[in-house]
Amino acid sequence: MRGVVMHAPGDVRVQDRPDPIIEQPTDAVIRVTASCICGSDLWPYRGAEPVHDAPMGHEYIGVVEQVGGDVKDIQVGDYVVGSFVASDNTCEICRAGFQSRCVHQVMMGAIGTQAEKARIPLADGTLVKVPGEPTEAQARSLLAASDVLGTGWFAAVAAEAGPGKTVAVVGDGAVGLLGILAAKRLGAERIIAMSRHAERQTLARTFGATDVVEERGEAGIAKIKELTDGYGAHSTIEAVGTQESMTQAIGATRPGGHVGYVGVSHGVELDGLDLFFATVNLLGGPAPVRRFLPELIDLIMRDQIDPGVVFDLELPLEDAAEGYKAMDERRATKVLLTV
Amino acid sequence: MRGVVMHAPGDVRVQDRPDPIIEQPTDAVIRVTASCICGSDLWPYRGAEPVHDAPMGHEYIGVVEQVGGDVKDIQVGDYVVGSFVASDNTCEICRAGFQSRCVHQVMMGAIGTQAEKARIPLADGTLVKVPGEPTEAQARSLLAASDVLGTGWFAAVAAEAGPGKTVAVVGDGAVGLLGILAAKRLGAERIIAMSRHAERQTLARTFGATDVVEERGEAGIAKIKELTDGYGAHSTIEAVGTQESMTQAIGATRPGGHVGYVGVSHGVELDGLDLFFATVNLLGGPAPVRRFLPELIDLIMRDQIDPGVVFDLELPLEDAAEGYKAMDERRATKVLLTV
Repeated sequence: MRGVVMHAPGDVRVQDRPDPIIEQPTDAVIRVTASCICGSDLWPYRGAEPVHDAPMGHEYIGVVEQVGGDVKDIQVGDYVVGSFVASDNTCEICRAGFQSRCVHQVMMGAIGTQAEKARIPLADGTLVKVPGEPTEAQARSLLAASDVLGTGWFAAVAAEAGPGKTVAVVGDGAVGLLGILAAKRLGAERIIAMSRHAERQTLARTFGATDVVEERGEAGIAKIKELTDGYGAHSTIEAVGTQESMTQAIGATRPGGHVGYVGVSHGVELDGLDLFFATVNLLGGPAPVRRFLPELIDLIMRDQIDPGVVFDLELPLEDAAEGYKAMDERRATKVLLTV
Repeated sequence: MRGVVMHAPGDVRVQDRPDPIIEQPTDAVIRVTASCICGSDLWPYRGAEPVHDAPMGHEYIGVVEQVGGDVKDIQVGDYVVGSFVASDNTCEICRAGFQSRCVHQVMMGAIGTQAEKARIPLADGTLVKVPGEPTEAQARSLLAASDVLGTGWFAAVAAEAGPGKTVAVVGDGAVGLLGILAAKRLGAERIIAMSRHAERQTLARTFGATDVVEERGEAGIAKIKELTDGYGAHSTIEAVGTQESMTQAIGATRPGGHVGYVGVSHGVELDGLDLFFATVNLLGGPAPVRRFLPELIDLIMRDQIDPGVVFDLELPLEDAAEGYKAMDERRATKVLLTV
């Protein structure tokens, strides 16, 4: 089959890779109908993480082609969505809603779903069947559910966005934007997008942002306080992963408030005493997307949400290299790869 | 009046200090009937924090002697308990239960309650009247409520200790021990005290610990995992404030679990990526003791809890220097000063 491989920073190629097979009786093999490029794929692309001949991609929708002997709930022909972490969905961690830290977790990025096919470990726990036949727009939204929507949703839930709450969102990439959508669906009263890109501000407002703050750092924190009677936001979503974004998120949150952080941390150090006196709730990490998939699929198939609009560039799998380039150069927010 | 002053690290003296007066119409002045020495008073005593001619003490019970013109709820003659942070109890932060970060907060440590009298700012918000006349044992427990009990209680609530939960407790000082008492009252199924002092282990078991772990660091984390089917504790109380104790607390907690940290942070740095993959809820800071005071006073006056037993040395105020020495040399867990 054809699949994307990153040979070195900046060197992305589409090439022949071995067809996946059932390796464990709990595996399934799916025909990928669409995949995409993640903001986190840019870290190795830019040399911020080591990379060498790595298959790429961890987001996917597709149709089941084969199942192992122990797979009970998923069948050949099912149209499915899964998270970027395969999970058994039965251990205590999964049952508590933290499937991204399942005791048997497999990171799908190590398998590489920017490809024609993919092996899905722990298929019964990982995959969720989509009822009916999605439209093209619904399929794009289902693909978003696989990571960026599910991650933004988790960030909003971790930040305890809800009725009566003012939510600040640090980061205007796909995850931050879909965090806004999630906060809106969860009933937040006011949503402040921190963004200085005109197009992303527009999308932020489409998803439910009531205010936009262009300032960053200390000035950004001061602006959030000014907008909240000096208190700070009740809930803050952090969707970048840098020292500046974490400091900004914690500083923008009132004592007793909640920070949901989902940007993969790069070089972040938190000073214990600053955190002590911030007195905020912190919850973050790889999002347990699987927890939210049934609800998100339902909302998408009933056309209640349209997260798929974050894809602003669509390319065939063979042109993946151009997709990476476009995201790296910020010409695209999120690239969909059709297979 | 007589009061404790720390002139320099290790140099504690009881001396004449000016009688407190009503400075603001929201103030009260109380006659302190008992105060105590806090574990946090040892940081400057040991030179870990700068100190120069500072009045000491932030825990207190006493009887109201004077009130300012705007004080409505507290009256002369009331027997009262307050927290180590004075708070208006009306701002949005207070109403959300985070009175220790009130927008008008005053740290009582700056006033110094190891003294015959003390000015209490924001008296209506800060002080809670005790119904009836406490016995000697109840008075000791009420004094504990002023900080160490309230702080341990907050840590247990922040860690979401409750029915069905396994709670690990890092730190066997007064706060850690009373965190055990709180976790027990909150219904925790299993409480693991991390302690290597025989006497404190005994007290931990008295307060409700079901297990004791003597190992620390990586070995301590491994032991907690061994006791919890490999998952880690649901809830962890951190009551020390060092790099080792925070690392141990986060490491002992399962993904999706909760860490309540109340040890005043000294030199702690948290690595963002470690925290990201720990995927635990973190909440800590100066405890909003005021939130819990009405409930704690009620439990104490109905003899449902006896936190006052953490005081293992009782001295007259004039002998405060000996009390500091005893705590510094670990001959006492917690020293009560009678006034």
